[in-house]
Amino acid sequence: MKNIKLQGLNEATMKKTKTRVDQLVKPQGSLGALEDLAVKLSGIYGVERPTITGKAVIVMCADHGVCDEGIASAPKIVTLIQSINIAKGVSGVGALAKLNGAKVYTVDIGIDTEDSHELLINQKVKRGTDNIAIGDAMTRSEVERAIEVGIMAAKQAISEGHNLLAIGEMGIGNTTPSTALLSLLSGQSPESLVGIGANFPTEKLPHKAAVIKRAIEGKSIDPNDPLDMLAKVGGLEIAGMTGIILGAAHNRVPVIIDGYISSISAILACRLFEGVSDYIIPSHASEEKSAALASSLLGVKPYLHLNMRLGEGSGAVLAFNLVESALAMLNDMITFEEAGIAVV
Amino acid sequence: MKNIKLQGLNEATMKKTKTRVDQLVKPQGSLGALEDLAVKLSGIYGVERPTITGKAVIVMCADHGVCDEGIASAPKIVTLIQSINIAKGVSGVGALAKLNGAKVYTVDIGIDTEDSHELLINQKVKRGTDNIAIGDAMTRSEVERAIEVGIMAAKQAISEGHNLLAIGEMGIGNTTPSTALLSLLSGQSPESLVGIGANFPTEKLPHKAAVIKRAIEGKSIDPNDPLDMLAKVGGLEIAGMTGIILGAAHNRVPVIIDGYISSISAILACRLFEGVSDYIIPSHASEEKSAALASSLLGVKPYLHLNMRLGEGSGAVLAFNLVESALAMLNDMITFEEAGIAVV
Repeated sequence: MKNIKLQGLNEATMKKTKTRVDQLVKPQGSLGALEDLAVKLSGIYGVERPTITGKAVIVMCADHGVCDEGIASAPKIVTLIQSINIAKGVSGVGALAKLNGAKVYTVDIGIDTEDSHELLINQKVKRGTDNIAIGDAMTRSEVERAIEVGIMAAKQAISEGHNLLAIGEMGIGNTTPSTALLSLLSGQSPESLVGIGANFPTEKLPHKAAVIKRAIEGKSIDPNDPLDMLAKVGGLEIAGMTGIILGAAHNRVPVIIDGYISSISAILACRLFEGVSDYIIPSHASEEKSAALASSLLGVKPYLHLNMRLGEGSGAVLAFNLVESALAMLNDMITFEEAGIAVV
Repeated sequence: MKNIKLQGLNEATMKKTKTRVDQLVKPQGSLGALEDLAVKLSGIYGVERPTITGKAVIVMCADHGVCDEGIASAPKIVTLIQSINIAKGVSGVGALAKLNGAKVYTVDIGIDTEDSHELLINQKVKRGTDNIAIGDAMTRSEVERAIEVGIMAAKQAISEGHNLLAIGEMGIGNTTPSTALLSLLSGQSPESLVGIGANFPTEKLPHKAAVIKRAIEGKSIDPNDPLDMLAKVGGLEIAGMTGIILGAAHNRVPVIIDGYISSISAILACRLFEGVSDYIIPSHASEEKSAALASSLLGVKPYLHLNMRLGEGSGAVLAFNLVESALAMLNDMITFEEAGIAVV
């Protein structure tokens, strides 16, 4: 993480792209977010008319010791099973990535098994976090390793020709650490933030909130230190996604975030290094209760309103088409001048 | 229009599809609108696991006599020029349709020129509407012909292998008749509804509202008769899009609407025949002031929030990917049983 260096957006190419966007055969501003996105992409890539060479979604998979507290509907083993399904391409993100011609990298950053599975990229930092209700999730050095795994995963995906990344996660129980982190980041109470995650029964939400409260209280947590927050109440896949975002930004590649959990990772990435938000592209507005608060803290307005709440990066991959739409606008529309029309 | 017959959605296939969707390897309901869309598509096509054979957007182009009142920034001639750009594939809808592998049909249903242009499908009903501020837009028989043009355009697109349609329009000045229609449909005043369309100056909006008020007042308009409303204050491309929707529904093909103007066409289609809404799929939430009211009257919740307000069908074609995503979910994800997992 010490090698991370962020460059600002290229103002010169952005200015040129903005001029072109304003001259395309349409009323100025009428393509809304696609116009803003085209200008942002130009600033990220540092070229006036960028193109996408390859798309990939990196899915970080890990377990959570706090599952011992009964905060999830599904048993821990589902993390492994579903990670394998993701790697096989038969889960939600797999089906949607295939439709959009995107590669899926499925990373075992901390599934609770002795060995990894042959279909997964083995970067296991440890066998899941420890139970945050009775202690820390992991050590600071494990957080750093998890972030490094994310940085290297981004680097690998980019070196394999992908210049547009998306992130996702799989980890039974992971709305619990995410909500603990959001409570620290927002100063709002777990009771007010807690949601159903993967269909956790509504009547058990007070219990989930109490577990989150227990995870936070009695620990000395520095709310200005993302690494400390991740170590005390975080998750390996959450830290891993923070790393992917840092790795993408370092390499001047845009990264599409998914829903609730990845938004938390993104907020932490933005707090670690100034200028990270320049490289982040939102996707969908997750149906999870506090996803809107997380988006607002991150300062993004999701494009897709589909009431989705699956995770895995399933919403992020839906935004590939929107990014490509912004560039199709930029590259395939003509200007008034090219059309031989005096601007009216 | 007298031959239009609507069948209801196929309840049997919908039930089977819903069962499969609920059994896919994800928490039930977690893919939100994609799940609902998959079930709806199954009901439309009458098969449990539908596939898209081809996508097309039909763009209806026409002029408006009310432009004489100075209610638009661009001169009338831009309708022809931009229709040709649409046909050439270099406008907004062209660039985005190309990205999504969709065919564009550009129909001259009433551009104000003696002859049509060789790149346009010539179905000119008349040389634009008459000035609604001083008389009717067209005769009832012209409305019927315009609707028939839309029905036949849908039929042709479907016969050429496209089983997913989208609609769009080009017509300088057409937010004026659209807002007149919305005023009749909603009972709200033109002053409260009027928006800037294609960058009409805000300070001139009271004038635009006054023109719309003039177009409505003093005419005897039956607010329960869509044909009468279209004849008195409508537009040829608005009627044409109503026809496309009817043609799609008659042939059991889903049709994606675009923004403000196409929503008005859709409301009229729904008032003409019961059950039309079953075949309508929303796309984006247009930035035009009263688009949200139009969506609400139509009973749809747009998926894409991109602050777009271009028209042409540019927002509608962005939803092709979402429809295909719903079917990718249905066809490429496996069920818990297929994965060999007991449902937890």
